[in-house]
Amino acid sequence: MMANPPFRGVLVPVATPFREDLSPDTKALVGHCRWLLDQGADGLALFGTTSEANSLGLDERLELLEAVVAAGIPAARLMPGTGACALPDAVRLTAHAAGLGCGGVLMLPPFYYKGVGEAGLTAFFIELVERVGDARLRLYLYHIPPIAQVGIPFGLLDELARRFPDTLAGIKDSSGDWEHTASLLAEYPQLAVFPGSETLLLDGLRHGGAGCITATGNINPAGIRAVFTQWETDEADTLQAHASAVRRAVQGHPMIPAVKAILARIHGDAGWRQVRPPLQELDRSVEVELLSAVTAAGLELPAA
Amino acid sequence: MMANPPFRGVLVPVATPFREDLSPDTKALVGHCRWLLDQGADGLALFGTTSEANSLGLDERLELLEAVVAAGIPAARLMPGTGACALPDAVRLTAHAAGLGCGGVLMLPPFYYKGVGEAGLTAFFIELVERVGDARLRLYLYHIPPIAQVGIPFGLLDELARRFPDTLAGIKDSSGDWEHTASLLAEYPQLAVFPGSETLLLDGLRHGGAGCITATGNINPAGIRAVFTQWETDEADTLQAHASAVRRAVQGHPMIPAVKAILARIHGDAGWRQVRPPLQELDRSVEVELLSAVTAAGLELPAA
Repeated sequence: MMANPPFRGVLVPVATPFREDLSPDTKALVGHCRWLLDQGADGLALFGTTSEANSLGLDERLELLEAVVAAGIPAARLMPGTGACALPDAVRLTAHAAGLGCGGVLMLPPFYYKGVGEAGLTAFFIELVERVGDARLRLYLYHIPPIAQVGIPFGLLDELARRFPDTLAGIKDSSGDWEHTASLLAEYPQLAVFPGSETLLLDGLRHGGAGCITATGNINPAGIRAVFTQWETDEADTLQAHASAVRRAVQGHPMIPAVKAILARIHGDAGWRQVRPPLQELDRSVEVELLSAVTAAGLELPAA
Repeated sequence: MMANPPFRGVLVPVATPFREDLSPDTKALVGHCRWLLDQGADGLALFGTTSEANSLGLDERLELLEAVVAAGIPAARLMPGTGACALPDAVRLTAHAAGLGCGGVLMLPPFYYKGVGEAGLTAFFIELVERVGDARLRLYLYHIPPIAQVGIPFGLLDELARRFPDTLAGIKDSSGDWEHTASLLAEYPQLAVFPGSETLLLDGLRHGGAGCITATGNINPAGIRAVFTQWETDEADTLQAHASAVRRAVQGHPMIPAVKAILARIHGDAGWRQVRPPLQELDRSVEVELLSAVTAAGLELPAA
């Protein structure tokens, strides 16, 4: 069997739509996945931070992934989040995704205990890979210290790269720190390194990066994809400036409710505003200001 | 049906024994529960931080609780941790515990997203209580900002106390900050307030506290229970000093591996050393030093 090639380009941590009773809206999720691929997204990182993955139950994550694949979204284009604090849950989610033929998985470290040692984190991932025991598995690690607090240390990457060179495929760096991303790019040329924001897309590509995995890919996939398509042309810096302007217009707001408020407008479906607690919807006055700001920044939105 | 009375006294977040293959050792767990009750523990807070609860899978938590109850440990003495980042998982664990007749549940807030608003946290717990919909439920909230990062704000307590006065029963305060515990005691006299360490047991009792829920209750239940039994006698300060000395001897070490290393000696079962990744066992040289330190602090241990 041919192994999945490494992901490249613009990957989107797909926002998860909920009904008023907080149940996932599978039909709206599949529709959004199709729209993102139509707009040029290279991959769909379902069950990321932006997807409220950690607000989904274990069974919900299994069922939603199956539903998306059953609806015809190509599994090879999927990089679902399968991290969990508990090894058995992480193994179950990861084995399930690999078994469905997903192109990769994006894994948070176990994030409950803080200040854990590198050896303990490494042991967690070694157990994970061995217990999943699936040669198809392609592992992308998820470094997001501002939220998970527990990060992905370089020593962990070194050990996994040494033990599982065919399995460890890349890393998403949501540190927001270009120096950290640059170090990853310099030290791990064999890994696909994705900054966690399109603001670092062009810089990343110029240093050997693979693309980006970004929350605002949900609302501006075409604008961000244009940077990737044309990064070696004279238009690159202008396209990057356009994409970054949209990102900055969103960033003053709580990211997930803001992305969902914009999706409500894009898809003409007010239900997209719904988030699961502990997150909260934007106040309507803030939403009006947000939509005005992203429009001013150049994002084209359908009329209300 | 008579409602469960509020917990009082010394509650122990029961350490979870694992076999070498990392599976839970149910028999050793039940044995440890019995020993703790024999030693005077007033309640067993299974699936706490010390229990590595967040390293257990959802199914494991359900099965272990059933096994402990089936083995004859009285459900009324149990206060299992049922918190989870995802509302459906928290509802399932909580409904299950209430259905088994547990005296209460100890709930972490959803701890993945950081900096979430009080309204969102409050919405989470309101949904939880309403979805569980069991009049037997007695809810103890778990404030442990050093690990969960997300705490239990006073406004959340106010709103839950107003909406669910018969359900909200208490709070465990693992802030390690006496001023915070004192504020809880002063402002919520109707709640059972448990400091998260026996070092604050006597101070808490003198200000209306209900007892304590403490990791080192696993290894020194009798010594800590003596403070509770005799807190109004002339011996109280001496007994508190003895208990605190043992705690301090443990505290220089990673708490969970240290507690388990001591339990290996107490129960004469080296398997107790086993932790799940991302935690790590103590080095043997550190273990030797630890056992010597707690013995010097007055804890009586069986010979090796």
